[in-house]
Amino acid sequence: MNDKFVLRPSQPTDTHAIFELIKALAEYEKLSHAVVGSVEALQKHLFGSRPYAEAIVAESDGKAVGFALYSYNYSTFLTKPGIYLEDLFVLPEYRRQGIGKAIFKYLAELAVERDCGRMEWSVLDWNKPAIAFYHQIGAEILADWRICRITF
Amino acid sequence: MNDKFVLRPSQPTDTHAIFELIKALAEYEKLSHAVVGSVEALQKHLFGSRPYAEAIVAESDGKAVGFALYSYNYSTFLTKPGIYLEDLFVLPEYRRQGIGKAIFKYLAELAVERDCGRMEWSVLDWNKPAIAFYHQIGAEILADWRICRITF
Repeated sequence: MNDKFVLRPSQPTDTHAIFELIKALAEYEKLSHAVVGSVEALQKHLFGSRPYAEAIVAESDGKAVGFALYSYNYSTFLTKPGIYLEDLFVLPEYRRQGIGKAIFKYLAELAVERDCGRMEWSVLDWNKPAIAFYHQIGAEILADWRICRITF
Repeated sequence: MNDKFVLRPSQPTDTHAIFELIKALAEYEKLSHAVVGSVEALQKHLFGSRPYAEAIVAESDGKAVGFALYSYNYSTFLTKPGIYLEDLFVLPEYRRQGIGKAIFKYLAELAVERDCGRMEWSVLDWNKPAIAFYHQIGAEILADWRICRITF
């Protein structure tokens, strides 16, 4: 399953491809209008002097066909950081090869390596296939927590 | 309202006081058993070579009476970081002076200053007074997103 693609940390030269994948993700979600960022800003936030996020790339046929972008949150009770997975996307024509599951495994191993206490992400509550998959890989869904947001 | 306390970024010498406030928060939530971390780990994660979180302290009567601890997440659509508020706690005897609201204002200004696109935090869905307060300060509650977690 793992011989058709490789996962690796992103490099500065990947930023354009990652931004294209972000746009493909938005298109898939019918949210293209919501992509108002720029490849320059992404470059700065991934690889600048003050990085805010990290990314990994799934490569197949010599091109980036998927990515995951994550940041770190923090548990004050554990006094340990956690990985927060912001985005995971695989181009539709490269699905059903196990790339998504391999990305979760890669990030879980990275989290353990960096002494993180947990790994978290969000899901829409009506997305039953995704929730079933997350249960299958050992995740719990925090039923009674809601995310609050102020937008600037 | 603002003359009885000051808010300021935490310093390495605050770590012990912050850890005491974390324990007070856990006690207030009847979750003291869940505090398994250490002041040494907190010190490293706030002020070490690879910081994972930042904190601010509310000071009154010359002592730390409240704190907020936050990390950064990232919006790929905005290509902007966001502030994620992990914990906000004020000692019960120092409440009703506006410290909590001042902390939200402080962090929102910090978020704007750092060109963040948003500020987020989580709330228990049955905590109606908190939700009413968050609406009052201009937050939206993301009704259909759920947090997924793998614990190591």
